[in-house]
Amino acid sequence: MRLYLASTSPARLATLRSSGIEPVVLPSNVDEEGAVAAAGPLTPTSMVQLLARLKAEAVAGPEIDGFILGCDSAFEIDGAVYGKPHTHAVARERWELQRGREGELHSGHWLIDHRGGTVNGEIGAVTSTIVRFAELDDAEIDAYIATGEPLEVAGAFTIDSLGAAYIAEIRGDAHSVVGVSVATLRGMLAGFGVPWHSLWNR
Amino acid sequence: MRLYLASTSPARLATLRSSGIEPVVLPSNVDEEGAVAAAGPLTPTSMVQLLARLKAEAVAGPEIDGFILGCDSAFEIDGAVYGKPHTHAVARERWELQRGREGELHSGHWLIDHRGGTVNGEIGAVTSTIVRFAELDDAEIDAYIATGEPLEVAGAFTIDSLGAAYIAEIRGDAHSVVGVSVATLRGMLAGFGVPWHSLWNR
Repeated sequence: MRLYLASTSPARLATLRSSGIEPVVLPSNVDEEGAVAAAGPLTPTSMVQLLARLKAEAVAGPEIDGFILGCDSAFEIDGAVYGKPHTHAVARERWELQRGREGELHSGHWLIDHRGGTVNGEIGAVTSTIVRFAELDDAEIDAYIATGEPLEVAGAFTIDSLGAAYIAEIRGDAHSVVGVSVATLRGMLAGFGVPWHSLWNR
Repeated sequence: MRLYLASTSPARLATLRSSGIEPVVLPSNVDEEGAVAAAGPLTPTSMVQLLARLKAEAVAGPEIDGFILGCDSAFEIDGAVYGKPHTHAVARERWELQRGREGELHSGHWLIDHRGGTVNGEIGAVTSTIVRFAELDDAEIDAYIATGEPLEVAGAFTIDSLGAAYIAEIRGDAHSVVGVSVATLRGMLAGFGVPWHSLWNR
């Protein structure tokens, strides 16, 4: 029983691996901005669900014999959604806003049962986790941004790398903050009558 | 600025590394059972605090120039404290008890400011995190135990390895479930006037 991961995120791959699954990685090349613009106004959870679905569907083909997983994540604070900051200046703005406060990390998942090379069924699920940040002083924000790490991650933070020390608390699924909830994936597989451990291949 | 870790736990070492710190690992060889018996009745949080302190103090010596960290963890459910199950039978009992329910993982930390080779100060902190387990069926419990992983971990579960899929939710610090809260360590260092990022050496 093979899992195909429609994502090139190293953090998602590492999470699946540590959970016992070595997936086949398939880059999906979805035009995310175009898809979101075409869909019209979307809630943050609808947006990550849509993009997870499009990524999974983009890699489906007759040669795929197994389950296809698409994932997408977004960070919401005060009703606004933030992606990757890309620049030092934007990352600093984000951290000046979010230090000492709470936001919500939404991870959308879409699982296609593609056993036998055809679509037998699809299930979607969004897992949202509250993240409360520590109170960082300006020197800590500067030091963290200087590492470059916050620039290319949604919400300008990680929980599984240098950002760990700056998260005071989470409420929800720790792995969904990284980008894929393996507990959610276990539930989706159960929806197809497939036990999670039957995918273990490490 | 060097961190000395008075623990040989691979999970604690991995957490510190991913958070930017490569510590010097010093095995502490504390007689844990003897120390707990000598202390008399202890709450779970007092117990992990005591053992964290004894581990840190056990490795202190004039050659240590930096900060010494001791850690200890215990899992509590229904007021009882559980360590490593060691056998398949005990691990099965634990999971039959804890599936679908909540427990609390307590991680004690003790930090000694040992800069210059002498004790300049000590700070302790316990971080407790609620863990809610998924509803596992008997076949899932059997499959998980058959991997051997639950046998040698407190509470018979991990969050950073195969156990990840069986945790429905946590409330608190994800890394304290692994055995060391880097956010707590950041706060303890701040108590000595030392910024967390000044310990980054990776």
